[in-house]
Amino acid sequence: MPTHSTQTAATPGNVYLVGAGPGAPDLLTVRALRLLESCDLVLHDDLVPDEVLALAGPQAEIVSVGKRCGKPRITQQGIHELMIEGARANRSVVRLKSGDPLVFGRAGEELAALREASVPFEIVPGVTAAFAAGAALGLPLTDRTSASKLIFATGHHASSKDPAPVFEGAIPQDATLILYMPGRDMERLAQELRDGGLPPDTPCCAISHAATPEQNYVSCRLHELEHLTPGTAPVLLLVGRAMEPMIAGPGNSLEA
Amino acid sequence: MPTHSTQTAATPGNVYLVGAGPGAPDLLTVRALRLLESCDLVLHDDLVPDEVLALAGPQAEIVSVGKRCGKPRITQQGIHELMIEGARANRSVVRLKSGDPLVFGRAGEELAALREASVPFEIVPGVTAAFAAGAALGLPLTDRTSASKLIFATGHHASSKDPAPVFEGAIPQDATLILYMPGRDMERLAQELRDGGLPPDTPCCAISHAATPEQNYVSCRLHELEHLTPGTAPVLLLVGRAMEPMIAGPGNSLEA
Repeated sequence: MPTHSTQTAATPGNVYLVGAGPGAPDLLTVRALRLLESCDLVLHDDLVPDEVLALAGPQAEIVSVGKRCGKPRITQQGIHELMIEGARANRSVVRLKSGDPLVFGRAGEELAALREASVPFEIVPGVTAAFAAGAALGLPLTDRTSASKLIFATGHHASSKDPAPVFEGAIPQDATLILYMPGRDMERLAQELRDGGLPPDTPCCAISHAATPEQNYVSCRLHELEHLTPGTAPVLLLVGRAMEPMIAGPGNSLEA
Repeated sequence: MPTHSTQTAATPGNVYLVGAGPGAPDLLTVRALRLLESCDLVLHDDLVPDEVLALAGPQAEIVSVGKRCGKPRITQQGIHELMIEGARANRSVVRLKSGDPLVFGRAGEELAALREASVPFEIVPGVTAAFAAGAALGLPLTDRTSASKLIFATGHHASSKDPAPVFEGAIPQDATLILYMPGRDMERLAQELRDGGLPPDTPCCAISHAATPEQNYVSCRLHELEHLTPGTAPVLLLVGRAMEPMIAGPGNSLEA
């Protein structure tokens, strides 16, 4: 089990898995902010923007452990080693992940490594991008009449060599489906959603850089999805009746 | 569309639909805290704890618009009127909902009323209870091998006179199912989950008051779920392979 400190300053020798929220610096939690301000070492993913990293205190060493953007690739094992070495050197370590740290972020492997090494840790939840997207669009993600469920999935596998479908079997039609990292292959994705039984007029909205000044979105119905061109990453694709106002509204265009 | 202010103080005449997070005062976002500190009127649900309301500034009038706890019932329409009257009296209004304001909270009706009345509004996302529960348990809610999806649903209908099942059709087995307000009828719920095709040994964990000092949990396998007695509301039921460590661990008891 993680520790449950109620103190707000980072404790030397501890690792904090912290959600950085969707991008805007003031959408961090107060707890996350206090830890960033007081920690010795920040290990962050690529998707965490500079404006958030700027909240770290002057004492903090800030290290990108992102695996993209042309930098020398760091392995998952390498991230584990940096966390554990930092804690064993009696530094307080913030492992900063965009959104919430437990959602689509390989946190399980990092937690297992910390447990294995007997390094005390704490998890600080965050605002996930889907909620920021709903807030930005002004649309509830659930609705008593048309969207009684939320389904978070990832399209990440769509770019791998042996791709698994995003969804196997029927997709509930009374749900808002939120696809993290949907990839660029909208034709394939549209086919999977149709194969899952979603009607061709199901509204879809791709939002890019939710909750940041660069935020933009495009929307269409499912039968047009293969022609949709989302904006640059990070992108979320929202699918379901709750997105109906995006089709009628000013966002009805196919390119970001 | 909502407004997108980047200022942190509440603007007179505006309504802010704000997520209060899962309960701990420092799990509010920084933006939510600034709005609470500066607003004139707070309209809050019952589930928002006193420790969070205590963050409001001394100028703020604080009004419970909860619909339970033996108080005279306020209608949904009554909540709309309080928001609109407050804004028209040039007060800044924070409509404070536990967790995220767009998830299972009838936000759609409140947003429609504000749009109808031409009252400017902004939505501030929050940390939902599910993420606080995962953080408290130290368990990732998704996992690359066993839990590629998250499904948020509500068991709220289970207590109504004409109850709809929580889930119709097959429940994906590679998902973590998170049930908000699961109710007390575990026998019925267990039957629905079995009818959805979940194996009898699927791990289940009911967590009560996640992310607060009163937090407690009980866990079991699906074939024992009818005997599970969750703690007091608010309760979340988490179901799926990602909860496996809760069965092996110290939380393996059937009563909170």
